[in-house]
Amino acid sequence: MDPIRVTVWGENRHEQTEEHVAGLYPEGMHETIAAGIREHLGDAAVVRTATLDEPGHGLSEPVLAATDVLTWWGHAAHGEVADEVVDRVHRHVLSGMGLVVLHSGHWSKIFTRLMGTTCTLRWRNEHDRELIWTVDPTHPIAQGVPHPIVVAEDEMYGEHFDVPPPDELVFISSFSGGEVFRSGCTWRRGHGRIFYFKPGDQDYPVYHHRDIRRVIANGVRWARSDRPERVLPELLRYDTGEFFTGRSYQGPTA
Amino acid sequence: MDPIRVTVWGENRHEQTEEHVAGLYPEGMHETIAAGIREHLGDAAVVRTATLDEPGHGLSEPVLAATDVLTWWGHAAHGEVADEVVDRVHRHVLSGMGLVVLHSGHWSKIFTRLMGTTCTLRWRNEHDRELIWTVDPTHPIAQGVPHPIVVAEDEMYGEHFDVPPPDELVFISSFSGGEVFRSGCTWRRGHGRIFYFKPGDQDYPVYHHRDIRRVIANGVRWARSDRPERVLPELLRYDTGEFFTGRSYQGPTA
Amino acid sequence: MDPIRVTVWGENRHEQTEEHVAGLYPEGMHETIAAGIREHLGDAAVVRTATLDEPGHGLSEPVLAATDVLTWWGHAAHGEVADEVVDRVHRHVLSGMGLVVLHSGHWSKIFTRLMGTTCTLRWRNEHDRELIWTVDPTHPIAQGVPHPIVVAEDEMYGEHFDVPPPDELVFISSFSGGEVFRSGCTWRRGHGRIFYFKPGDQDYPVYHHRDIRRVIANGVRWARSDRPERVLPELLRYDTGEFFTGRSYQGPTA
Amino acid sequence: MDPIRVTVWGENRHEQTEEHVAGLYPEGMHETIAAGIREHLGDAAVVRTATLDEPGHGLSEPVLAATDVLTWWGHAAHGEVADEVVDRVHRHVLSGMGLVVLHSGHWSKIFTRLMGTTCTLRWRNEHDRELIWTVDPTHPIAQGVPHPIVVAEDEMYGEHFDVPPPDELVFISSFSGGEVFRSGCTWRRGHGRIFYFKPGDQDYPVYHHRDIRRVIANGVRWARSDRPERVLPELLRYDTGEFFTGRSYQGPTA
Repeated sequence: MDPIRVTVWGENRHEQTEEHVAGLYPEGMHETIAAGIREHLGDAAVVRTATLDEPGHGLSEPVLAATDVLTWWGHAAHGEVADEVVDRVHRHVLSGMGLVVLHSGHWSKIFTRLMGTTCTLRWRNEHDRELIWTVDPTHPIAQGVPHPIVVAEDEMYGEHFDVPPPDELVFISSFSGGEVFRSGCTWRRGHGRIFYFKPGDQDYPVYHHRDIRRVIANGVRWARSDRPERVLPELLRYDTGEFFTGRSYQGPTA
Repeated sequence: MDPIRVTVWGENRHEQTEEHVAGLYPEGMHETIAAGIREHLGDAAVVRTATLDEPGHGLSEPVLAATDVLTWWGHAAHGEVADEVVDRVHRHVLSGMGLVVLHSGHWSKIFTRLMGTTCTLRWRNEHDRELIWTVDPTHPIAQGVPHPIVVAEDEMYGEHFDVPPPDELVFISSFSGGEVFRSGCTWRRGHGRIFYFKPGDQDYPVYHHRDIRRVIANGVRWARSDRPERVLPELLRYDTGEFFTGRSYQGPTA
Repeated sequence: MDPIRVTVWGENRHEQTEEHVAGLYPEGMHETIAAGIREHLGDAAVVRTATLDEPGHGLSEPVLAATDVLTWWGHAAHGEVADEVVDRVHRHVLSGMGLVVLHSGHWSKIFTRLMGTTCTLRWRNEHDRELIWTVDPTHPIAQGVPHPIVVAEDEMYGEHFDVPPPDELVFISSFSGGEVFRSGCTWRRGHGRIFYFKPGDQDYPVYHHRDIRRVIANGVRWARSDRPERVLPELLRYDTGEFFTGRSYQGPTA
Repeated sequence: MDPIRVTVWGENRHEQTEEHVAGLYPEGMHETIAAGIREHLGDAAVVRTATLDEPGHGLSEPVLAATDVLTWWGHAAHGEVADEVVDRVHRHVLSGMGLVVLHSGHWSKIFTRLMGTTCTLRWRNEHDRELIWTVDPTHPIAQGVPHPIVVAEDEMYGEHFDVPPPDELVFISSFSGGEVFRSGCTWRRGHGRIFYFKPGDQDYPVYHHRDIRRVIANGVRWARSDRPERVLPELLRYDTGEFFTGRSYQGPTA
């Protein structure tokens, strides 16, 4: 099979403005995430990166057309992501591009648009220990990691997480404070597969953690479509502003 | 329990411009749909109607705040529904207002926004017989109707229907041409419950059909929230344009 | 609507043999559970009890036929429950009787038969604090309780819980040790509704807890069937030992 | 990756006693099913067969231990399958062996035990045309087949199909009589994956059909576990007759 073409998208702002974050991620969080995917997938993946401040946020039509799976980390600047880029990414996901949404990406425009809900949650940035328990031990995303994965420190995310009930619930996290969170969830939307994975606040070295990198790599492999072509679901009418005037369907024998 | 406050929303355009439709629905499709709900729910519901050409499409903030369940039929003029009204309805659904989407409402702005997908399907308007089979005989929405419900003539809707996998699949339809369609589906989004029900093209007298009316009435009853208050999921951040600045959660004992 | 006819089944052995348990539940755990249901449902329910050492375990055909919802607590003596009684309960659940399975009932014959899996889990009986978080705030079973419910002490149950993915996940618990558990789950089987709820080891006074009682009462209300008759799914062939010789189906117009 | 070790199990009775069936399947239905899998998977699979009248039905412990995916076709002799063989297959499925159940296998002991329900359905053996529509176009099992698959003649199976709601609904069939059926369904049970696929009555040459063979081959590939070891879910207690006496769990840091 051809290598998976991965684009790792990073907001890349905290790394510019906060010394502490720059210390943890000298080349940017996106480079560390990309390195983790390369580490686990090797020749099975070709990984590039893109960031908010590149033209078109580095997500032009040709880039997306050549991307099998996009990963997304954003936080402070969700509002700066251009709507036309969100439209483009949305269309590609519904057409079959995989999407892996990380941590604070829960409030990104692309994720909330795909979910249709507020995607709110509870949070507390106070060095909680996070334990990540597998609740679907058969899932490809859960292979090769301990039960639980132990993250010494990360931001707490707690329920209620306002997303549609996931198609598959893979991981549940608990925190020092006793909170719980559905921290690994999958959904199918159109022809695309979506994986949300909770760990990864910018204030902690979470994307250097071996098991977290493994889960993200597993998620990338899982999210790649089995369909050979990138197409929107048929009789496509993506925008809602106009009445569709396509052809009537004349049946299986027509 | 208090009566369910229902608002039946109708586009009400075909009835103005097409003699054939006016003949089937002299007072508008919305009035026939409303009559069917009253017929089955009696004193258990208080039903009003609203239409596209009323100011604010008849869906002001006070109207929605006093609506437990909204039903939606639209077709030719989805694009004329104002975005601010869609925002308002969306917020109310996520806060707990029930939504029953009928037939060509599958391409309404509110439904596609809640689903996050294209909501496309195959169609053919050629007098197919529709058989509506129950696949979840325990579901409250399926009570009191034959298996199958027989609709002598309606528009064909066929798979693939590009929606998220329904939380519950209640009905599957077949058509004269051999096509199938997931014709009764439920989803939960935020605090709201959504029921999509396929029958009801404007060219056929479907909303005079006893069993179809029963299903819609059942759907209205099911869609009413059990929660006493109308509130968005907590730590609400509905728009995606700004960084949330709420309080950190201090845990169950704080 | 008629009152819900509830039968609370209790193994009632620990109460006979362990002074500590008898002290917590002088009249037996089943009587305390029954009292909690009466407290919350009042005239909306008629509650009786049955126990292992009664003839036929108190679950004769007439008793089951007059039971809308059965609750089940067992632990030390699962193996003593007669297979013919399990057959009878199974047939009634598939025919529409609701079933609420409590705590160590996860390993009862009736639950494992309905699930088809081992229903194993991790456990530790060392006075963990249990926090029960709502992950489906719209669910009728989750109404009227705090988020989280705090149980000062109970046995720990941890993932992986080997059950089919629940149709609806209502609650997730965390424990002092950091473990998590899908502690409130629903499944539909045949015409019956099943609710599993984790709290309630015999060594702790959990069934005196106001919120736990509320959840069980909510579960009973939810599990009552909407169908008017108690019947197995059609073309019934319950045992697998014989070839079915029923009539061919001649279609909707025959 | 190693080739998938497939065992195709066939009841192989109709082929012995009915000339018509022997004419369609001179070497037995199991050999035709096996040939179809080989045709599509080639070197990626090693396929053997086993039948009812072999000792232990050809499903000894060593055979199952060396089987990644088992396919099952039975009809007239479900009752002759020994309970100890069913126990063994059940344990292997829960431990990670994939299972593909075909057509009248819906009433096999192994399938009803895994489902926990009656698995009844409506049927009519009168040469209906069957159309098999894809409702999850992203699913690996649905790749490479037309929409719909057209089967000129097969037995009709109609709803209501009394199984647990499938984890994934891949195909829905319609029939000449207008009936519908959830004809391609998946479930996860324990560490095992299960795929039910409806086509294939013994009176028709369905397993010679190119697309049907493709789906079965896809199902085999999908059902193979990602887990490296064949083990029951942990703290294993398979039978329900005895109280578990295993070790208490001392937590992630113990």
